[in-house]
Amino acid sequence: MAKVHNFSAGPGILPAEVLQQAAAACLNFDNMDLSILEISHRSKNYVAVMDEARQLIKDLFEVGNEYEVFYLGGGASLQFAMVPYNLLTENGFAAYVNTGVWASKAIKEAKIIGNTKVIASSEDKKFNYVPKGYEIPKDADYFHITSNNTIYGTQMKSFPKSPVPTVCDMSSDLFSRKVNANDFALIYAGAQKNMGPAGSTMVMVRKDVLGKTNRKMLSMLDYNVHIKGESMYNTPPVFPVYVSMLTLRWLKEHGGVSWIEKINQQKADLLYNEIDRNECFVGTVEKADRSNMNVCFLPTKPEYEAEFDKMIKAERIDGIKGHRDVGGYRASLYNAMPIESVHVLVDVMKAFEKKIG
Amino acid sequence: MAKVHNFSAGPGILPAEVLQQAAAACLNFDNMDLSILEISHRSKNYVAVMDEARQLIKDLFEVGNEYEVFYLGGGASLQFAMVPYNLLTENGFAAYVNTGVWASKAIKEAKIIGNTKVIASSEDKKFNYVPKGYEIPKDADYFHITSNNTIYGTQMKSFPKSPVPTVCDMSSDLFSRKVNANDFALIYAGAQKNMGPAGSTMVMVRKDVLGKTNRKMLSMLDYNVHIKGESMYNTPPVFPVYVSMLTLRWLKEHGGVSWIEKINQQKADLLYNEIDRNECFVGTVEKADRSNMNVCFLPTKPEYEAEFDKMIKAERIDGIKGHRDVGGYRASLYNAMPIESVHVLVDVMKAFEKKIG
Repeated sequence: MAKVHNFSAGPGILPAEVLQQAAAACLNFDNMDLSILEISHRSKNYVAVMDEARQLIKDLFEVGNEYEVFYLGGGASLQFAMVPYNLLTENGFAAYVNTGVWASKAIKEAKIIGNTKVIASSEDKKFNYVPKGYEIPKDADYFHITSNNTIYGTQMKSFPKSPVPTVCDMSSDLFSRKVNANDFALIYAGAQKNMGPAGSTMVMVRKDVLGKTNRKMLSMLDYNVHIKGESMYNTPPVFPVYVSMLTLRWLKEHGGVSWIEKINQQKADLLYNEIDRNECFVGTVEKADRSNMNVCFLPTKPEYEAEFDKMIKAERIDGIKGHRDVGGYRASLYNAMPIESVHVLVDVMKAFEKKIG
Repeated sequence: MAKVHNFSAGPGILPAEVLQQAAAACLNFDNMDLSILEISHRSKNYVAVMDEARQLIKDLFEVGNEYEVFYLGGGASLQFAMVPYNLLTENGFAAYVNTGVWASKAIKEAKIIGNTKVIASSEDKKFNYVPKGYEIPKDADYFHITSNNTIYGTQMKSFPKSPVPTVCDMSSDLFSRKVNANDFALIYAGAQKNMGPAGSTMVMVRKDVLGKTNRKMLSMLDYNVHIKGESMYNTPPVFPVYVSMLTLRWLKEHGGVSWIEKINQQKADLLYNEIDRNECFVGTVEKADRSNMNVCFLPTKPEYEAEFDKMIKAERIDGIKGHRDVGGYRASLYNAMPIESVHVLVDVMKAFEKKIG
């Protein structure tokens, strides 16, 4: 039977060889004759996994020892709270850009902790573009952005120069393209798009921004506790981190971020070109801000949907239904998505136009 | 080659059939032709997993709809903070019993949040017994205990009748024996002993104890948010919850808690009887408080250790080294540990005595 083309917005597609290795480790990890699901996280074999995963993140970001990397549970949603808890001072304020659902949630949590200003928003047009040309206050404790918006399909193509530490939620486009990581004070990302399965979240932070709030902190919410514990203050999400390590190793071994960036651009171009050419579909996002990860488009007539749904199902195209806030379709083109699957989708779109026409 | 006998204190041994199913799902989950590591947590196949896992917990605890169950990331350590965050009022206080490292950590976090009294402790004897005969203050917001102490090998054999809601950390003996769950207002447990792999934590709470603090709460730390989100407020730890569900299903299908309790008693009796009989070893814990999950013992002469270590290694006995706070040996006998492995250990202990004698 033909393979399933997995366009899921997340948890999303992972490399086939990673899935094979993950399955094998469930039975016998590292020739220990034990499953990775039942070994101590303090065993030397597993400590090596955690160390490699953390180093791979630093390698892929090309940062030095002024940065610390650790994995946590709780998803990016927990980071929405932990970022202000660790960085927002009592008399200071944080500056946020609101580019959609996830940014809004981050803002909501920051407001519970301290003063928070929304300095730019694209809410006026249902988040179908990325705000630009705003000024970042020089006296903010930090400046928070969301690099890619999974739901609305927008992506920041460049990052404003900031006079204060920049914090970025990169959950849905992490390691999909070159960024200058040294421009950021803190980057976080739920693993379940480009970095592994659900259940672990990566935090990379430049150490000098920590320890400034005087807040008496709960241990599990204190970045310094996790740094000191070398990402094992308590039992980490052992298997999710292992599969994340395999995914990062796959990326590095195949050529790293510059390799995948080219492929991701080809995939996105292929699909956006078809959306723009095809009279039956229309993109939802301003062209300059279109995400290379999450491609949102609508049928030009609502009644097309039922027939198109039938045709994509016949080709085993999966996970392409648009988010309820946008409707239509959303094709997620994460790192592990082969261009062949995008061709299959584009071919169905062409066939649909022919059929309708 | 002989199998490895996995006495790890946690993450600990899981049933062989669960490991097989977990490995298979990494390649093809539920005949979807997709890995469980790359599917949406909102897919109907996965929602069914989450629902089954939550229901299994209620079934095994034999509780009704006044209780809610959900899974979180972050381990029991995050619950050390979330319990007081959700239950400890501004002018109230919490009553804790200190029975070791984990209870101490829970107390430390509670003190950051509000007034906390330690009403009993076994610290005077390096936590080698469980305090008894203390009075639980009638005006406490809640009473917190740790049912089993993984590090020191003690276990509460009964639970005091409490005039206030009882909160229990059952991380290391959950579902190993019958307890009257209806006597508890809140039970939490890191999954990585009797309930699955690392990466998810179970919380079961009686709804009436929530919503009393007037605290403005961060979403991810608010139990009511997770209840309302049916354990999917945000992306859950998909795979850890799946393997937890398989482990709970295994337990229920084989006869449930009353079935495993008998086997666990046989395993513990077998090993403790040998410790008491054998002149080369001595238990570390007061007999009445010995844990059926974590059996701690020392060689009667320190110089025995090198030779005994060699002998257990030859039999592929793994994960039995004692915690650095106690020394010697700790054999963890979690639900999935077959009695055959305990026989192998006991036989080595007998052989060692013979050799020394």
